[in-house]
Amino acid sequence: MARNTQVAADHNAPPVTHILAQFVATHPPGGWSDAVDHEAHRTFMNWVGCAVGAAHHEAADAALAAVKLLQPAAQASVLGRTEKIDMASAALLNGITSHTFDFDDTHLKTIIHPAGPVASAVLALAEHNNASGRDVIDALVLGIDVSCRIGNAMYPEHYDRGWHITGSTGMLGAAAGCARLLKLDTQKTAMALGIAASQPVGMREQFGTMTKPFHPGAAARAGLMSALLASQGFTASPKALEAPRGFMQTVSTKNDWNEITSELGQRFEISFNSYKPFACGIVIHPSIDACAQLRAQGVTPEQVERIELKVHSLVLELTGKKEPADGLQAKFSVYHGCAAGLTFGRAAEEEFSDDIVNRADMVALRRKVVATVDDSISEASADVTAVLKDGRRVHVFVEHAIGSLQNPMTDGNLEAKFHGLSDAVLGAAQTSELINACWKIGTAASVGALVALASPQRA
Amino acid sequence: MARNTQVAADHNAPPVTHILAQFVATHPPGGWSDAVDHEAHRTFMNWVGCAVGAAHHEAADAALAAVKLLQPAAQASVLGRTEKIDMASAALLNGITSHTFDFDDTHLKTIIHPAGPVASAVLALAEHNNASGRDVIDALVLGIDVSCRIGNAMYPEHYDRGWHITGSTGMLGAAAGCARLLKLDTQKTAMALGIAASQPVGMREQFGTMTKPFHPGAAARAGLMSALLASQGFTASPKALEAPRGFMQTVSTKNDWNEITSELGQRFEISFNSYKPFACGIVIHPSIDACAQLRAQGVTPEQVERIELKVHSLVLELTGKKEPADGLQAKFSVYHGCAAGLTFGRAAEEEFSDDIVNRADMVALRRKVVATVDDSISEASADVTAVLKDGRRVHVFVEHAIGSLQNPMTDGNLEAKFHGLSDAVLGAAQTSELINACWKIGTAASVGALVALASPQRA
Repeated sequence: MARNTQVAADHNAPPVTHILAQFVATHPPGGWSDAVDHEAHRTFMNWVGCAVGAAHHEAADAALAAVKLLQPAAQASVLGRTEKIDMASAALLNGITSHTFDFDDTHLKTIIHPAGPVASAVLALAEHNNASGRDVIDALVLGIDVSCRIGNAMYPEHYDRGWHITGSTGMLGAAAGCARLLKLDTQKTAMALGIAASQPVGMREQFGTMTKPFHPGAAARAGLMSALLASQGFTASPKALEAPRGFMQTVSTKNDWNEITSELGQRFEISFNSYKPFACGIVIHPSIDACAQLRAQGVTPEQVERIELKVHSLVLELTGKKEPADGLQAKFSVYHGCAAGLTFGRAAEEEFSDDIVNRADMVALRRKVVATVDDSISEASADVTAVLKDGRRVHVFVEHAIGSLQNPMTDGNLEAKFHGLSDAVLGAAQTSELINACWKIGTAASVGALVALASPQRA
Repeated sequence: MARNTQVAADHNAPPVTHILAQFVATHPPGGWSDAVDHEAHRTFMNWVGCAVGAAHHEAADAALAAVKLLQPAAQASVLGRTEKIDMASAALLNGITSHTFDFDDTHLKTIIHPAGPVASAVLALAEHNNASGRDVIDALVLGIDVSCRIGNAMYPEHYDRGWHITGSTGMLGAAAGCARLLKLDTQKTAMALGIAASQPVGMREQFGTMTKPFHPGAAARAGLMSALLASQGFTASPKALEAPRGFMQTVSTKNDWNEITSELGQRFEISFNSYKPFACGIVIHPSIDACAQLRAQGVTPEQVERIELKVHSLVLELTGKKEPADGLQAKFSVYHGCAAGLTFGRAAEEEFSDDIVNRADMVALRRKVVATVDDSISEASADVTAVLKDGRRVHVFVEHAIGSLQNPMTDGNLEAKFHGLSDAVLGAAQTSELINACWKIGTAASVGALVALASPQRA
């Protein structure tokens, strides 16, 4: 019964568990450029807005109802709600809500949504432990560096195999961030990473169900608990990431160790984070942007005979749903995305509501979208031509959509997006205060004031 | 960037998520033979004994200390201790303790230790919900059937790849058992399985650390929470197990769907469960048994010049540690196993204590063991020859060790094993009462009396 695994084990991997643990435990506070620190604030703010915006989604209601069966202690806040629950469950809930609208940040090299697991764990722990805002930002930068570097090493094989890479690397970023916040030493940080390494979360088959946003939530919870366990002396393999039967070799046949060790402490992966202008999968964004540009040029839905859309094959593979039945399905429909872009000039969460998705004019307009595959077009681009009833053809080519690294959301764009998510939950005035608190979190003595501002019943 | 996965996806898998959910939700209570029901009681009793025995191990202390940071409600018992914690954390703790001594049950076809995840989740939920003992046994039989059938389908590829199959199938058995206990319908049971499918736990690299027993504990917790989430309306893919990017195809290239559907409701996998007589990995058992037989034949350590051990290569691959530094390492040392068998005629937890492992006579004796690989010998067998100082050679061949399916532990053996684990924790008299309560659990109106008997401070 002696058997060989399909892929030869790599017995010579560098000791990346130790290397990352040492990095997380010993890197100087704020030991990076102002640009990196500002990107961390943008990441944090975008995450808070997404979490507040989805706080009352039915997924949050169901998850909170399940958590309440455990009669949790009131340790940490569910952003956008009045309830407080134990910090591990708060990490779960905020991780769920921040990803529910598919509106959170994206590390484009790996399509990891890094803040969900890391920020959800770090903020819940920081609230209960009364940690400083500086410590939160440090934990966020370092935690995201860990999960994204591990993602870089395994991408794309790991994702192609079926893993939802946000949840299957996020528990490591969350563990790293929480270990940092707890000021664990290198050895205990390695144990936290090791315990977390046994708990990857999430398969892509869950896309379109509540279990998709559950992935970053569960990863946040697992990472936080791993750090707490390590802090109490719980042990794991010090080679849990890299060993032949450790995490990475078990879940990926591609492991480029150099992606973890190269320029560690010099290049920070949070620099490559991006923020969605549209509340759906990133591959639809160029098409929405193009249709919004058509609208800006004066094209109206009534004028349109046909919309000719040329995109990379991956766009239709991932988001080719022609007749979405509801808002959730519409997030995987480039057809609906085009209709929303042309009709509203935007595609925030509201444009993915069931009501709008099923509106007769929207159904009619998306049926006018004729999509064809052209793999000479990048998956980051879209080529759209509106063929009008009067015979005119209006053409827009989007090379890099708004929200991409080449064409990033401005701070003002991010604030407008935050208001779009939060005003209905907290009111515009309190939302403005919360935005301000997010921009200043790195110098706040504690996170208490910020989390209070994220509650509809602030003191 | 369109890519192909290495292994072609199977788009024609049968709907096993639905099939298993329907089976779990609708199978009649006690709808199996008396032999199956008795085996369920043996499984349950063996699990309780293991959990009580390790209740004060440092792994349990560390895990409980971490859980207490969440200020848990007193919903369910940690077996063998006085603390009560929330039911999800109790599932975690009892899952950890029941596997800490590597002394729990083994489904030999897959080397899954099935009770840890399933019983830990089910009993914690049953205690809080005041469920009947009959419901607990039903949930245990059905939950174990789910995890072991999924294990059968994926074994050995999934295990060879690096997964600790107990934790990476256990969350499904735990979810199934808890869904049954909550009387969820087929649709919600499918959701519970689906949520759990995104949360496999554990890599083999963790063997020899506290994270190994953490795997069944975390799987128990994940399964219980998945059922609670489903009960509150949380959704997952109804094809979460079998879809091309669902759980099974993501974590295993071998998926024999027939193993899941064949004789479902007729053949119960709990029938193939076995119980360890020795507190270590099953592949060492034939060697320990052989050395204990040498001792029974009058061979003493003092007489021995050399012990010639011939075993399958897998035995040395998994347990070839020549110089174990402590009790935990000794569990992965066939050399120590032989020394314990010859010296004590047994190898319970006590014989894997640090003190005994480091005793000079034990160190000396295990250095006399000369192990050679012979793949003509089954991994379930061992060929041992004691070469004595006077030149005599005493030979023992063990085809099937005590505790194997072919040579099972009797009920009396199991009771003796239970006393060996529990007497030091609960005292012999209370242990006898607890054993009696385990044998009668299938007819108990609730599990309250049993869990009270498992506490050192019974009422």
